[in-house]
Amino acid sequence: MSIDRRRFLAATAAAGILASRRPAVAAPGASGKAAPQRKRNVLLIVADDHGYDMGCTGGSVRTPALDALAHEGVLFTDAYASVSSCSSSRATLYTGLYSHTNGMYGLAHDVHNFSLLDDVKTLPWMLKQAGYATALVGKLHVKPEALLAYDAWLEPERPPVRDVAVMGHAAGKWMREQGGKPFFLTVAYSDPHRAGDPSNFGNTRDWPEVKRERYAPAEVTIPSHLPDLPDVRRDLAEYYEAVSRMDTGVSILLRELEKSGRADDTLVIYLSDNGRPFPGAKDNLYYEGIRLPLIVRVPGASKRGARNNAMVSWIDIAPTILDWTGVAPPKDYHYLPLPGRSILPILGESDPKGWDEVFATHSFHEIDQYYPTRSLRTRKYSYFLNLHPELEVPIASDVARSPSWKAIAATPGTKLGKRTLEAFHHRPAEELYDLSADPDEIANLAGDAKHAGVLADLRRQLDAWRTKTRDPWQKDVTDPFGKTK
Amino acid sequence: MSIDRRRFLAATAAAGILASRRPAVAAPGASGKAAPQRKRNVLLIVADDHGYDMGCTGGSVRTPALDALAHEGVLFTDAYASVSSCSSSRATLYTGLYSHTNGMYGLAHDVHNFSLLDDVKTLPWMLKQAGYATALVGKLHVKPEALLAYDAWLEPERPPVRDVAVMGHAAGKWMREQGGKPFFLTVAYSDPHRAGDPSNFGNTRDWPEVKRERYAPAEVTIPSHLPDLPDVRRDLAEYYEAVSRMDTGVSILLRELEKSGRADDTLVIYLSDNGRPFPGAKDNLYYEGIRLPLIVRVPGASKRGARNNAMVSWIDIAPTILDWTGVAPPKDYHYLPLPGRSILPILGESDPKGWDEVFATHSFHEIDQYYPTRSLRTRKYSYFLNLHPELEVPIASDVARSPSWKAIAATPGTKLGKRTLEAFHHRPAEELYDLSADPDEIANLAGDAKHAGVLADLRRQLDAWRTKTRDPWQKDVTDPFGKTK
Repeated sequence: MSIDRRRFLAATAAAGILASRRPAVAAPGASGKAAPQRKRNVLLIVADDHGYDMGCTGGSVRTPALDALAHEGVLFTDAYASVSSCSSSRATLYTGLYSHTNGMYGLAHDVHNFSLLDDVKTLPWMLKQAGYATALVGKLHVKPEALLAYDAWLEPERPPVRDVAVMGHAAGKWMREQGGKPFFLTVAYSDPHRAGDPSNFGNTRDWPEVKRERYAPAEVTIPSHLPDLPDVRRDLAEYYEAVSRMDTGVSILLRELEKSGRADDTLVIYLSDNGRPFPGAKDNLYYEGIRLPLIVRVPGASKRGARNNAMVSWIDIAPTILDWTGVAPPKDYHYLPLPGRSILPILGESDPKGWDEVFATHSFHEIDQYYPTRSLRTRKYSYFLNLHPELEVPIASDVARSPSWKAIAATPGTKLGKRTLEAFHHRPAEELYDLSADPDEIANLAGDAKHAGVLADLRRQLDAWRTKTRDPWQKDVTDPFGKTK
Repeated sequence: MSIDRRRFLAATAAAGILASRRPAVAAPGASGKAAPQRKRNVLLIVADDHGYDMGCTGGSVRTPALDALAHEGVLFTDAYASVSSCSSSRATLYTGLYSHTNGMYGLAHDVHNFSLLDDVKTLPWMLKQAGYATALVGKLHVKPEALLAYDAWLEPERPPVRDVAVMGHAAGKWMREQGGKPFFLTVAYSDPHRAGDPSNFGNTRDWPEVKRERYAPAEVTIPSHLPDLPDVRRDLAEYYEAVSRMDTGVSILLRELEKSGRADDTLVIYLSDNGRPFPGAKDNLYYEGIRLPLIVRVPGASKRGARNNAMVSWIDIAPTILDWTGVAPPKDYHYLPLPGRSILPILGESDPKGWDEVFATHSFHEIDQYYPTRSLRTRKYSYFLNLHPELEVPIASDVARSPSWKAIAATPGTKLGKRTLEAFHHRPAEELYDLSADPDEIANLAGDAKHAGVLADLRRQLDAWRTKTRDPWQKDVTDPFGKTK
């Protein structure tokens, strides 16, 4: 197993993100103050609950815009969220810090009330300091707003509105208004999240400029974590329609980028916050919960339509954007070095060395849904440390109210793929899976003597990562920043 | 059992706090906008971790200033915090809302990161709208600061500083500076909380204007929740010294109030945020964790040195202050009616009718110390609903690092009073105690057939209270404000 990432984590001496090889389009020197010399813009597109379901990956959902984007850029086939819960995952994107470090331990909205730690700096904040125009279109779901500090927040989420055209045009208008100023624009869709009634995915009406893509239940592909039940198929068909609607939104948005005349200077990143909103994916650190779409398009790249199997984590997205823009976090920033690293240097590769493991963390989804887990995934193994195995694993309430879950709960003996409901709900303190023999993560090898060495190694790595990333859930650690221990 | 409080909780029609009989000193009409006609000031004194330990209650700790205050005012002998954790309890004082309603589910500082819900209004904010000058001296420990919005924050907590004189003089200077403007002043001591090294309580040096009160271990009274061990005695002796230091601070502060010429128009309230920082008290909803000092001095009261056995809750403090000042929450405020009620009408009584039960709630202390419990306490019974009995009851880290806990853990067979460590750490889903026969809350009657009727009644009351107070931990309730259920 590669230890590159581990070595990286140990490199505490360097302030700021790790210096990385620059991409073909050279980035200016990293400086937190001066405006970048070139106008290198960023368009970050964030989907809501979009699993690894795209036409270009062989799925039966139709996503021509994402397919085209992948054709012009790089599709990462082994990209992972570092947490499978909306606010926590977005907070990771925005801060380059794991959710157990940045304070966003669970959902931000309503009574859940999680928020970033006061002294955390965000990507839009850092880019703004460097002279960037910044805007958010659509969903935020991270608190407090003051720490995000976008110049503009256009078309904020208004459930159950799914008007992807109005979002795209708002983005276009804003891009055109920025003149020659470099920009950081985040467009965050509410699709394909379930809508107010968790069965409809916002598909109860037509939306402007969107040709509805209806799917027959027979058309859908049953993912490995779900049973093949009629209601599950119908539910997936609705989800597919929402994916297709968002895909239309992406096409509108990318046309707006072209029309703005800024496409040639703009890094485009497409990804999703967490897994599809079905039992066993969203809200879980298992493969189907965190393995997600990631498409990166760099203007002027020589290689197009490439596929890259690097194990990239959402923790790497902020460093990538900082690398592209040549902006660095403030020198005295409390949380340096950021634990991720830029993926720009490996964009042209298909099987880059040293990208063979990702960490993940989960603490809460809703405020009363506590199930702290820490995880390390390599090419060969996945390892989970469940800090309170005595608790039942909770289910996000939109998933719990979904037709899929209702059908599963009403059908005795139904499994989540190969996993029994009992195994899903009650997990041991440690789980170890051999991914080559058991990609569904069913046969726990944590108690297997033959795997004792592997287990000890993963345990040690996870422990070092928890210390390094200031995990407040470390045993007997009250203040992970070391004031008291 | 009285159902007055229950009836009160059912009275949702009325906006604002329940109209209460006015005290002898008539309050002006409740209006959120206009400045009160009379200059009715408030001095709210909040101790940190001060259990029911005072000279005037027969304890061996020397508290001449509190004794004198009790002699001039009313000592409540059955007053209870509604949660035994610092930030949650202060948030209750400041908002008049239970901590599961106001969002302050656990500690505010550092990685714990709990905060008030964005739309919650606080006492200093409401009083400021009504024309009050507002200041905090000492400890805040509630977030975000913007929702507290004190005009001035003097001598903010600086661990391990315990300079009660500088706090008193800062308060005096500020009061004198307000001219004739009505004021709301909170003075929040860091005593008698444990200091950085949990064994010393800030007693390692002399502090200005404080004559050190040293206590011999033999002098201390062992409270009912602790074993009589030499290290526990030494630890209590240190705690006593911190109580006495704070008491000196109170004497300095009250002299400053006199000197300011405002004492005759100022309501003085003395209380503590939670129980003493020893195993089984602080951080627990058992009697010794929430039964605390409460002294109220109203200027011009005809009766002095009275004792009042009303079961008062900290949920009643904000309504009391609003009643005294004649200020009401905004009419369209989301959280009306406040669940507490003013204690001014019963100040002159010793055994008032209809004050015979208090509710309490606990969710977190530190972020990784999750143990949600809801409780109802009457004259006759205490009832606890432990929402996750499968979890071990955690111990606040300062208590866990204390000499008392170390001695207890190192002495096989030691109990916390009459409670075994096993019973302390592992509690059933429901606990029911007959307080007349079993004031130490040891013999759980929840499974006793003879008490099935009582249990059902308490369960029903607790359930109604949870619904009414929008408890996010209610089963199958995602949004306790009713948008989704």
